[in-house]
Amino acid sequence: MNDSRPIGILDSGVGGLTIAKAIKNKLPEESIVFFGDTIHLPYGEKSSQILKVYTHGITSFLLEKDCKMVVIACNSASAAAFDTVNASFGDIIPIVNVIDPVVDSVVKTSDQTIGVIATKRTIETGVYEQKIHQINPKNTVKSLATPLLVPVIEEGYFNTEISKAVIKEYLTNPAIQDIDSLILGCTHFPLVADEIANFYSGKVNIVNSADLVAEYVKQVLIDRKLFNSKVTMKDIFYVSDLTPWFEKTAKLFFGEDIKLELVELWGKR
Amino acid sequence: MNDSRPIGILDSGVGGLTIAKAIKNKLPEESIVFFGDTIHLPYGEKSSQILKVYTHGITSFLLEKDCKMVVIACNSASAAAFDTVNASFGDIIPIVNVIDPVVDSVVKTSDQTIGVIATKRTIETGVYEQKIHQINPKNTVKSLATPLLVPVIEEGYFNTEISKAVIKEYLTNPAIQDIDSLILGCTHFPLVADEIANFYSGKVNIVNSADLVAEYVKQVLIDRKLFNSKVTMKDIFYVSDLTPWFEKTAKLFFGEDIKLELVELWGKR
Repeated sequence: MNDSRPIGILDSGVGGLTIAKAIKNKLPEESIVFFGDTIHLPYGEKSSQILKVYTHGITSFLLEKDCKMVVIACNSASAAAFDTVNASFGDIIPIVNVIDPVVDSVVKTSDQTIGVIATKRTIETGVYEQKIHQINPKNTVKSLATPLLVPVIEEGYFNTEISKAVIKEYLTNPAIQDIDSLILGCTHFPLVADEIANFYSGKVNIVNSADLVAEYVKQVLIDRKLFNSKVTMKDIFYVSDLTPWFEKTAKLFFGEDIKLELVELWGKR
Repeated sequence: MNDSRPIGILDSGVGGLTIAKAIKNKLPEESIVFFGDTIHLPYGEKSSQILKVYTHGITSFLLEKDCKMVVIACNSASAAAFDTVNASFGDIIPIVNVIDPVVDSVVKTSDQTIGVIATKRTIETGVYEQKIHQINPKNTVKSLATPLLVPVIEEGYFNTEISKAVIKEYLTNPAIQDIDSLILGCTHFPLVADEIANFYSGKVNIVNSADLVAEYVKQVLIDRKLFNSKVTMKDIFYVSDLTPWFEKTAKLFFGEDIKLELVELWGKR
């Protein structure tokens, strides 16, 4: 049994490349087709209704590209659109979001106080709290929207006075004090995981989604007998709007140079 | 002669409300119809081609609303789309951008070194440099993209450790040293004008676009005999995507509570 079809990965921009990278690291024999919906970014400020429309459209596109699985590598899209996209396409191929693997991992340990930082959209949906309480209602969840971290990371200002000031401002917020674990609920945040760990001097367990999602993807490929044993095609990276800045940022998140290809999925306008 | 039609003002989001506010302060008898293209924000990262499409569409909408003038209250849209929008609609009503009034004001003084801070899109177009040199080639222009200032302001973090760190990082950049004047080339920046002035301890002339654009609008109304002498209709504020966050931010930029109305100008999707 060998399935050489690629894994589809979608995001609002290029932040989801941290997830793509973790998947490639764990499953180097698999190929990926990435789609960054850069013309619509940021998803974090948009309504749930429109995020469903975008996520459906991109999933259809990835199915046309013969993907054997679709990973919604964006917390805002996972929170707003996973259920409906899974209802529409889950019978055809497995649909993976970036929230369930993290929640499953955190609640495996004993009752605790779990902090969540993410974009406004993700926090407003209350998706982490709901999913954590579904599995174990005894966990306490404390949430905070930390929207400034996204542009700080995208501009490359991690490990600077700026990121230090922003992290301190957010993590001293009364809303997320006295926590045992902190879920980094945005695909950008793996790039400041070390700085956040340093802020807490090791006293808080930092839950980094990229590795957990990659491990989950591996398990689904094994369970569904979808894995590939030998690299047979090149990775492809599509975006819906292409600028030099996206190319630069893509390198930041993926950790190496990649070629972005423009697909006008939403028409020329 | 009295023209009670409203002034149309368009922006990518709600930052252009700093311009709307300055116009209302200077011309309290005029009514405005504002359109914030919140579903497409931020314009600063988008291609010129698509900004032309958006700006044309919104200008058409404002003409349908019987506006007697349209102010493109966004530097990215002014740089990318003013020429073509003016070519299309300039015979019908005056089209005003936020760049020319500022350039005209700065180059009135003697030869100097002029700094410009703005979004990436505005800086990449080189529009300030071109327009300054058209009037007086002896001026030296030094430019720097300062994209992080936009989210810092939108999140309300002015006069904090965060804004201080971001302003220091940008204004100590070698690219914009030894300047006489600094043009704040983004409609958000009036909200950090004081902090920027403090950084320079009064040694650099801070050029704040909002008041200059309002003065220019007043002059055009007088020259074209379009002014209104008595308030006859309420101001209207449209947005293409509506969330509680936009309402909160709108208050920040306009300085008072306003009611945003959703117009699905680009269809339901």
